[in-house]
Amino acid sequence: MDNAMLCLWPDQEPRFGTNIQHYVDFKKAFSLQTFAEAARIVSDKLHGFLEDDGIQGVSLEPPLALLSAARELMAEPEGAGFNAERFSDILDLYLRTTVKVHSRGYMARQFSSVVPVSAVFDMITAMAPQPASYYEAGQLANVVDRVMADEFGRLIGWKDGSFAMVSTSGASLATMTAVLAARNSLLDGSWEDGVSAEGRGRGRPAVAVGEDAHFSALRVAGILGIGQKQIVRLPLNARRQIDPEGARAALDAAAARGLDVFCVIGTAGSTSVGAIDPLVALAELAHARDAWFHVDAAHNGAFLVSDRLRARVEGLALADSFCLDAHKTLFVPGLCTLLFYRDASVADIAFPHKASYVFDPEDDEMSRFQSGTKNFECTKRPSILNLWLVWALFGRRMFEQKLDYLVDLTCAAHDLIADQPDFDVMHQPESNILCFVHKPPWVPADRLGHLQLELRDRIRAEGRYFLSKVELDGSTVLRMVLMNQRITQADIAELLKAIRRHADDIRDGRPVVRGSHAVKAPPMEDALRTGTLDEAW
Amino acid sequence: MDNAMLCLWPDQEPRFGTNIQHYVDFKKAFSLQTFAEAARIVSDKLHGFLEDDGIQGVSLEPPLALLSAARELMAEPEGAGFNAERFSDILDLYLRTTVKVHSRGYMARQFSSVVPVSAVFDMITAMAPQPASYYEAGQLANVVDRVMADEFGRLIGWKDGSFAMVSTSGASLATMTAVLAARNSLLDGSWEDGVSAEGRGRGRPAVAVGEDAHFSALRVAGILGIGQKQIVRLPLNARRQIDPEGARAALDAAAARGLDVFCVIGTAGSTSVGAIDPLVALAELAHARDAWFHVDAAHNGAFLVSDRLRARVEGLALADSFCLDAHKTLFVPGLCTLLFYRDASVADIAFPHKASYVFDPEDDEMSRFQSGTKNFECTKRPSILNLWLVWALFGRRMFEQKLDYLVDLTCAAHDLIADQPDFDVMHQPESNILCFVHKPPWVPADRLGHLQLELRDRIRAEGRYFLSKVELDGSTVLRMVLMNQRITQADIAELLKAIRRHADDIRDGRPVVRGSHAVKAPPMEDALRTGTLDEAW
Repeated sequence: MDNAMLCLWPDQEPRFGTNIQHYVDFKKAFSLQTFAEAARIVSDKLHGFLEDDGIQGVSLEPPLALLSAARELMAEPEGAGFNAERFSDILDLYLRTTVKVHSRGYMARQFSSVVPVSAVFDMITAMAPQPASYYEAGQLANVVDRVMADEFGRLIGWKDGSFAMVSTSGASLATMTAVLAARNSLLDGSWEDGVSAEGRGRGRPAVAVGEDAHFSALRVAGILGIGQKQIVRLPLNARRQIDPEGARAALDAAAARGLDVFCVIGTAGSTSVGAIDPLVALAELAHARDAWFHVDAAHNGAFLVSDRLRARVEGLALADSFCLDAHKTLFVPGLCTLLFYRDASVADIAFPHKASYVFDPEDDEMSRFQSGTKNFECTKRPSILNLWLVWALFGRRMFEQKLDYLVDLTCAAHDLIADQPDFDVMHQPESNILCFVHKPPWVPADRLGHLQLELRDRIRAEGRYFLSKVELDGSTVLRMVLMNQRITQADIAELLKAIRRHADDIRDGRPVVRGSHAVKAPPMEDALRTGTLDEAW
Repeated sequence: MDNAMLCLWPDQEPRFGTNIQHYVDFKKAFSLQTFAEAARIVSDKLHGFLEDDGIQGVSLEPPLALLSAARELMAEPEGAGFNAERFSDILDLYLRTTVKVHSRGYMARQFSSVVPVSAVFDMITAMAPQPASYYEAGQLANVVDRVMADEFGRLIGWKDGSFAMVSTSGASLATMTAVLAARNSLLDGSWEDGVSAEGRGRGRPAVAVGEDAHFSALRVAGILGIGQKQIVRLPLNARRQIDPEGARAALDAAAARGLDVFCVIGTAGSTSVGAIDPLVALAELAHARDAWFHVDAAHNGAFLVSDRLRARVEGLALADSFCLDAHKTLFVPGLCTLLFYRDASVADIAFPHKASYVFDPEDDEMSRFQSGTKNFECTKRPSILNLWLVWALFGRRMFEQKLDYLVDLTCAAHDLIADQPDFDVMHQPESNILCFVHKPPWVPADRLGHLQLELRDRIRAEGRYFLSKVELDGSTVLRMVLMNQRITQADIAELLKAIRRHADDIRDGRPVVRGSHAVKAPPMEDALRTGTLDEAW
């Protein structure tokens, strides 16, 4: 190559070095003083945020108003330094519109009140990254994958070295990865040749999921080239678990239609009611048909850490793969998902690296520790470290005790609500989710569902509590998810009083009571009735 | 339902409330005092970390030693409170093994030295989440998607309202989403019926990528059911860009083999040399064949923010979709990827929600703002807010100036190295990546590649600088990626001296010089020669 070749400078630009002044301003953004000031402001704000024991649900603001507020905060100062006041305004706007996971009023969704030290740790991993797919880039992160795998392996009852764990970003990605592993193992050549209708010569490839499966499990068939029409839905029993007998019949019927179910997906902790499918029976059913058994245990896989609750998910040990979300029920920041394979040798079959030019076949100590060939991500946040950090500082029993508390609290809520003549509970809780309805005597039976919706809207608008709603067999019911250790039985009792008060308001035609923030917003009941979110968490 | 039905308490367990003492300990983990102490410790550590202007590359430690260290930090204290000393030890271990993005010695990979205020903000989004797929859960996050889309739309030159932007977690996921959108739009029925060899009746569905495409683009064909064999590789020119004439010939040859390329993937900022494909020509080529044109602009899409550099990626305006990683070249924490669609109406075709039971067909103001139907994630970190925060506080010109500086610095490095008689540069840099070789007169031509590998190893082992290596046309060359505004021309000159010193050591048979941390580790040159990472970033 010609050493005299010079870099192409734009003709109109002065050469580098002659206009170094041009570059001075931007370095203010990286100054140590700016960091120190911002860290102090954020710490103070969060201190106040956590200290606040006020009862808050959610304060929904209209998007267009929020859009104006966000745009007003962008002044594009030319080379200005750090503006502490604007920064503080931005934090206030963020905290005002955030999910109130630390409040005793927030009972709507599977969002965790995180262990504060793990959120603090996120500042470290953001500033000094350990992109965790490769050993060189994420040394501690990759090693800690192994540490946490071993801890869970003991709890599952799997033999050391026989299984694998891959940390990844969300149960949607974990389930896609697992079904891809199933597809690549069982449908020979599907990675290389593509998916074909012939599959493994037993019929058209298909995937079976329960009627209450999360929407991300349904998407997988579309994404992986199997096709949505090749999803076999498995019927539920009265507890909203997959019914093994019904499932057998559904699989038989599917086979008769020419479908070859190569993967059965169970759920441990359904979004709607927290139901846990009969995992042992489903594992047997799947394996008898040479199908892979995956469990979406995003919500209740965490029961493994509790000596008392572990038995509820014992079938996980029989699954070919399962995932759990530590950012849900192990109380660390999102996204921290653990994907387990019972057989370590299939862990890198989802993304066969022999086909790629990237991964050297050489197998050394460091590459054995790194996860890049097993997870989808190239750059991956080292979120597993948040889980490990809390585990190291406070021990497994901290998770156990909080989970036991939440499950017991949900039981207590169940008993309290079941005792009220004007309420019905819909199920015995298997987890920390409880569905129920308020049925004051004045409500005609055919308006019961509408009342629940109206109650949900009014409770939300007031901004003190926040419940969600779900449709169960066509009926709208209220749903509480108890994720926060601050919530007590007294809070549940207060909530019931508030529900009765709102019902009286509806009966008497009184207007909606609006909370301080919601006051600024126009009426939104109709707009909020889309229910978009309610089946997701 | 029977109101007398009671919750199932485990027989062996005391009822809730009778053993409330059992639950006391775990609440220590959530105490305000613990938060305050942890936040203070982390702020102090990071202050020291950022203040340190020492020149460091990487300090690789053997996994088994690190595993022991990690396990020793787990004492599982039963109900113990926060142990500040252990927390501090964990932070030290993390920082010791992290990627040294803030050091002037780290020049190896596309990892950003982040704007500190955005890392601080991550503590807020971790503690008080705004899971960003749904408006109710991530109000500000969803609105800010729109704000940032508008900012970029103006820079791209797209008409307001005509395009869409989806924030997602990594370019791998963005590219998968975009190719899925292409597949679902062009291969009719592939979401519902599955992928078929018939495709759109023009041949077997195929995807075309450049010879230097990132491995994640190659994986997509396997994941989506197209098949790795249906990947058409497009040849490169001397600047390692896809050659449009060669590409045309390759597409013709593919068609003759019965392949129907429905998606062409270009790159703006290749991993190896930072090359930008001729996007305008490729867009024309793809569109003339009714194929979708996607650009993986993970690295150089950020050029849009610079008035001077924008012209280098002008073809992005013609792409059907492209993605850029703000966590690479806009200097915010990972993962913050922006996926753009030129035509807003195709943005929700990757995950057709009509097929799902989740999403209500009702189209209201809030659901128009939310991203859940357009992105893969169900729970999504609101990383877009980190980008917006920095943009709001410091303005677009901050990004522009840092990018201009890095690109100019790379040009200066090119000129400096090209001027040395004992070095060769491999290309004119189009970005902030430069490949070169050291060729002292005593090295035989057939050992030149081996020398670069040995130099890379020795430089890394010393721990002062860190370069990567890549294979270009079968030759091993050194590679620098300049991501850090602290690096100056003087640092490049010092690096060259260090390279010469290491080469002299090799020539004279002197042992490897090891840095303070690396001293603890056994020799690892061989283990590290896997090159696993080098094609990824």
